[in-house]
Amino acid sequence: MMTVRDQALACRAAAQQVAELDAPARHQLLTAMAEALAAAETQILAANAEDVAAATAGGTAPAMLDRLCLDASRIVAMVAGVRHVAALPDPVGVVTRRERRPNGLLIERVRVPLGVVAMIYEARPNVTADAAALCIKAGNGVILRGGSEARHSNRAIAAAIDNAFVACGLATGAVTVLTDLRRESMIELLQLNDIVDLAIPRGGEGLIRFVAEHARVPVIKHYKGVCHLFVDASADEELALALLVDGKTTRPAVCNALETLLVHAAIAPQWLPRAAAALRKRGVELRGCARSRELFADMVAVSEADYAAEFLDLILAVRVVDDAEQAIAHIRQFGSDHTEVIATRDELQAERFVRALRSAVVMVNASSRFSDGGELGLGAEIGISTTRLHAYGPMGAESLTIERYVVRGEGQVRHPAIPCA
Amino acid sequence: MMTVRDQALACRAAAQQVAELDAPARHQLLTAMAEALAAAETQILAANAEDVAAATAGGTAPAMLDRLCLDASRIVAMVAGVRHVAALPDPVGVVTRRERRPNGLLIERVRVPLGVVAMIYEARPNVTADAAALCIKAGNGVILRGGSEARHSNRAIAAAIDNAFVACGLATGAVTVLTDLRRESMIELLQLNDIVDLAIPRGGEGLIRFVAEHARVPVIKHYKGVCHLFVDASADEELALALLVDGKTTRPAVCNALETLLVHAAIAPQWLPRAAAALRKRGVELRGCARSRELFADMVAVSEADYAAEFLDLILAVRVVDDAEQAIAHIRQFGSDHTEVIATRDELQAERFVRALRSAVVMVNASSRFSDGGELGLGAEIGISTTRLHAYGPMGAESLTIERYVVRGEGQVRHPAIPCA
Repeated sequence: MMTVRDQALACRAAAQQVAELDAPARHQLLTAMAEALAAAETQILAANAEDVAAATAGGTAPAMLDRLCLDASRIVAMVAGVRHVAALPDPVGVVTRRERRPNGLLIERVRVPLGVVAMIYEARPNVTADAAALCIKAGNGVILRGGSEARHSNRAIAAAIDNAFVACGLATGAVTVLTDLRRESMIELLQLNDIVDLAIPRGGEGLIRFVAEHARVPVIKHYKGVCHLFVDASADEELALALLVDGKTTRPAVCNALETLLVHAAIAPQWLPRAAAALRKRGVELRGCARSRELFADMVAVSEADYAAEFLDLILAVRVVDDAEQAIAHIRQFGSDHTEVIATRDELQAERFVRALRSAVVMVNASSRFSDGGELGLGAEIGISTTRLHAYGPMGAESLTIERYVVRGEGQVRHPAIPCA
Repeated sequence: MMTVRDQALACRAAAQQVAELDAPARHQLLTAMAEALAAAETQILAANAEDVAAATAGGTAPAMLDRLCLDASRIVAMVAGVRHVAALPDPVGVVTRRERRPNGLLIERVRVPLGVVAMIYEARPNVTADAAALCIKAGNGVILRGGSEARHSNRAIAAAIDNAFVACGLATGAVTVLTDLRRESMIELLQLNDIVDLAIPRGGEGLIRFVAEHARVPVIKHYKGVCHLFVDASADEELALALLVDGKTTRPAVCNALETLLVHAAIAPQWLPRAAAALRKRGVELRGCARSRELFADMVAVSEADYAAEFLDLILAVRVVDDAEQAIAHIRQFGSDHTEVIATRDELQAERFVRALRSAVVMVNASSRFSDGGELGLGAEIGISTTRLHAYGPMGAESLTIERYVVRGEGQVRHPAIPCA
């Protein structure tokens, strides 16, 4: 078995080749990846059946089994996802700025691939294909370290992708599934700061903290999404209700679901009882502050821990605040810098809310559930960053590149007065 | 004395105030900083004299003493530097992209401050004022950990800056000079990943490795600048000579000076002897490969260590290569991702060189000495990054911000079919 370091070095070498492809060649490679995944359906499903059997025998929880399990329709979705990424605009080589200096030098900022990305994730084998496609789209190599429950599935997916590289006449290795899944090996991978340019962990908070703890390579992560809706005094009541129901109930287990509702004291008496009743009808447990509970009796008392919690469930913390400033202070204290929403008809208040908060995504009169790469126009998403460096918020293919400088001259020197020969 | 953590928390709280200032108010603050530094000249020079006396008594080397020492003209330059930063365009709040989605949502990417920056540097007290100005320009707080040799100077500079904050009616603390200069305290600072958003070390490779080793906060750094000039077969001989002399001799101790010359075998016989003679005349020691030494006798044999070295001195490694591909392979093997130059009249060759190399700055027919924030149009520079994340190459005020999302709607929800009440 190759060592982690050898696998990473091979990935870097192969990634160089991917970086040098032009956009049509990279498009062709991604199309070949989609075709190879479709062609390998039988092998991938057989490998996945092995993983599912082992997980079932090991007493894995049903929710985890569901994330692990592939079927024909999930393979179709995986293939469609890769084709979708192939069709996105190519981020590599894009000139983001061009300036002619007074001395005649032409300065360009040009997007180039990051290099080698390490993805660390849990049970879902479709992440293997998604992440590979986005990393290749941006001209990078990727080292995939999935959960050991999905080891056979991930290897089968990687074998299919390798076939695509071979079909395109390219060296394999740019998409590398780590074969050694011991914790020590993950730590070794996370410390290869001369080879790996970025680690992106995706999964539960425990995994992400483990990665952040052990990494010597840069990490872009988000621990949790404690998203807030603030209903201002001037809010349109129906609009605020729609944002609340959509944000809390349509998919409570995802990171852009609402976790806390803050209601301006001026609108709370007439609006909060209606809103609370609508949520209770949909099975949402409400945990409220004392003022909320005066307005709607069917709430348990909220705790400070609730204000900081990502419930990922049909539970909502509720607080009545004196004004927008108190809402802002609450979000600064308890928020996770993910997504915050204000419902208001007052434009000045909206601008104040946007400016005062440092979260990755701030919305005015829109559902927090739009905080997603696809919905925000990125085409696809490799993760969401609440790290205030490099990328902040949903990350698409462009987040897997970096801008560098290309300078063109006609012999300009810094000290032209010096005779040369 | 406040603990490191207390100082960092105070900095973060004060930084929030700076982040919320509008551009005219931030401009006024920076102007007040310049005025306060000018007004404190006597105190700063007196404090600096204490540092210089202690360093002299301690037997500090003359080069280090020169970096430490301030005089009236250096104060004037420091004040002018802060005024220059004040006059730069404000990077905060700039909308870098705006898109209307099919559902009517208006998506903007907007620059916001990073938060709190930790600067770790050595003897030069002018870095204290420069870094403070750039961090404030971008709406950040900054924690300055300078060398202990400059402790009195740095405190006097920080006291002057505090006066400016008070004059503008703002809380002090956004520009914080670390008072506890023990190594353990620097490590503590570098591990405050819940408070500090970015560490930028500036100084010798030893300091930078120490920071990278101990940091739990993100670090943007460059270890060294091993800059290459490749003289292609088609190069204009006079132009290549000018780039070589400018790159190697005008300021050999800086990171954008040339360290290695690669010469195409087809041009080497007629060009290299002239070029080598021009450098020898200027006192440059040449260390050449066997083929170079056949063409110019006054060279010592080059070693692999020389190819990887940042000499920071009048020394140049020289190698004759078969073609551009060998030059590219050499730079990939020995380079430091800082700055590479090609001298050529062949546009295809130039594009191949630019595309094949992953360095932060790649130049065609221009001196490596232009690899500098001021020369590339950034206005000022807080450092140069060879970290392939967030910023790559010279970093200006914009590199101290991050793009986030602002979304404006009229009540859009993800699942509009669901009735609300």
